[in-house]
Amino acid sequence: MAGRIETLRWAGDRLELIDQRLLPQRVEYYACETAAEVAAAIRDMVVRGAPAIGCAAAYGVALETGRPTFGSIGEFHAAVEAAIAELGASRPTAVNLFWALDRMRRAYDEVRSEPPERIATRLVAEAVAIQREDLDVNHAIGRHGAALVPDGARIMTHCNAGALATAGHGTALGVVRSARDQGKRVAVIANETRPFLQGARLTAWEMVQEEIPVTLVTDGMAGHLMQRGQVDLIVVGADRIAANGDVANKIGTYPLAVLAARHGLPFYVAAPLSTIDRDVPDGAAIPIEERDGAEVTGFRGERWAPEGVAVANPAFDVTPAALVTGLITERGVVAPLDPDGLRRLFVG
Amino acid sequence: MAGRIETLRWAGDRLELIDQRLLPQRVEYYACETAAEVAAAIRDMVVRGAPAIGCAAAYGVALETGRPTFGSIGEFHAAVEAAIAELGASRPTAVNLFWALDRMRRAYDEVRSEPPERIATRLVAEAVAIQREDLDVNHAIGRHGAALVPDGARIMTHCNAGALATAGHGTALGVVRSARDQGKRVAVIANETRPFLQGARLTAWEMVQEEIPVTLVTDGMAGHLMQRGQVDLIVVGADRIAANGDVANKIGTYPLAVLAARHGLPFYVAAPLSTIDRDVPDGAAIPIEERDGAEVTGFRGERWAPEGVAVANPAFDVTPAALVTGLITERGVVAPLDPDGLRRLFVG
Repeated sequence: MAGRIETLRWAGDRLELIDQRLLPQRVEYYACETAAEVAAAIRDMVVRGAPAIGCAAAYGVALETGRPTFGSIGEFHAAVEAAIAELGASRPTAVNLFWALDRMRRAYDEVRSEPPERIATRLVAEAVAIQREDLDVNHAIGRHGAALVPDGARIMTHCNAGALATAGHGTALGVVRSARDQGKRVAVIANETRPFLQGARLTAWEMVQEEIPVTLVTDGMAGHLMQRGQVDLIVVGADRIAANGDVANKIGTYPLAVLAARHGLPFYVAAPLSTIDRDVPDGAAIPIEERDGAEVTGFRGERWAPEGVAVANPAFDVTPAALVTGLITERGVVAPLDPDGLRRLFVG
Repeated sequence: MAGRIETLRWAGDRLELIDQRLLPQRVEYYACETAAEVAAAIRDMVVRGAPAIGCAAAYGVALETGRPTFGSIGEFHAAVEAAIAELGASRPTAVNLFWALDRMRRAYDEVRSEPPERIATRLVAEAVAIQREDLDVNHAIGRHGAALVPDGARIMTHCNAGALATAGHGTALGVVRSARDQGKRVAVIANETRPFLQGARLTAWEMVQEEIPVTLVTDGMAGHLMQRGQVDLIVVGADRIAANGDVANKIGTYPLAVLAARHGLPFYVAAPLSTIDRDVPDGAAIPIEERDGAEVTGFRGERWAPEGVAVANPAFDVTPAALVTGLITERGVVAPLDPDGLRRLFVG
């Protein structure tokens, strides 16, 4: 199943990204030949989803080391540094981006004194490893998460934490896929996730491809469905988890957690350890990206809001740790989600 | 101010409705010459908003009595009965529709034995009275509600409970307009209100016309804004209020009430007495309209969801009375919103 949707394809001299702005109407790949092109693809949401952004950024650094057009060795090293800096400035909230760039920097530092060809080989290998490990991690998350899913569960999810948000399989949707692979009957309720409509376009498309029953709703319908007893659990991904367990995820996640608590429904966050930022004490310290207002006043070519209206477009919100029933990681489930629980994840 | 936006215009032999499907891009009037055309306009949301639907339905009945094409007096009466039935079946949730039709029926019953021309005159007069009274009622609601609005308030609203949802001035936006008219500085946060985008298209447009500062957000952003202390109070309209004070309003209202309670923010419902349905004991007994899935899979001509996805499209949700800080009516504010409070409204 995991092979069906190829979010990122490394082609030796370029990174090919499934263009997530066009899905599901068009399945087209977008080729990046430089770090700057990868940074632009991340900014413009050709590729999105915290783990997928990390993978893409890693390849962005690798691409830069493979370019034949540098003059001196000094220029080469300056170009690599600039690539890391530019990629690091592409989006501020998902910490997997910085995690992947740190890992690429460590690999780079190891081979820094070697010839550029050798550095390029090493950094491509590191990016490939990051991508391959992410796929493994998602399968482990799926396995741990599937144990929490009852047979016949109706699972609500927000945004897209699927194969398209990762190297494959997905985090939240990895839990869904693994539960289905274990023979459980599962059905997904996909919140459309305005403004970028990742739920309506990406999650719905992934589930239709997998032939997993999926019902699309607008973001405002979640409360009504919970009230009517039509939701059994909620599973979402994460863009950054603070040291105290507060979770930054796609805007609209926090209201779901508040509603889940009111209705006594389990609210799980599925994310790799690379999403945990132990340098950030709590959610208030997580930078929240503010995106272009044009995303809110319409969609694609169409504008429906009147001229003259102001717009707010925070791309993420923060769910307090106390509202999270459990964090599903590749090392198992942490519940309750507190600083001690998170610390234990990193031991051994 | 109230005269600026003419939601419904009676033109003697036809009802002209501002076509709310086209706003704000196009300001066009849609003419109805028969009750069936008015019923279709209500179903298709040319006109929407509980009080406006009531006004439109009243004119629909009046139109039917004025048609010169009936044969016998028996056919005339049968046509009026059929018109009332068809209008009553156009949308199920907003009770103002049935309230207005009941009032038209009472007027009709009073003059039933008189000649058709006399009946027509009486029913047109009744529809005009319903529309005129609704405008007065909205100004009274605005006056009572404005007293609850602090200077400098940032007022979040959902959907459109404005001039476009009523005969003019509006219920929730009537509170905003009246507060502004009293010299208070107010700013509106408009939730876009998927799927029909009444917030993005109608509320934003009304506020831009009035030069009242308005910020547009997607429905999922409300929690984040409350968390960041950027909302002072919430005011919404209502489509039906049960005898126990439970409030049916546009889908997405209930999550706002839950979030408001969590953040200690006042959550007001502004609605005329005609929205209170004393025959319905509680919210669970209010019929919730399920609309066409095509509203959720895209907007206007554009479809963005994949083929093969199932859709839920409940148009309303129910907010329990306990989450409502106060109901703002033309007779004053009821708080707490309990059966006793509601009963007192109808005394004297």
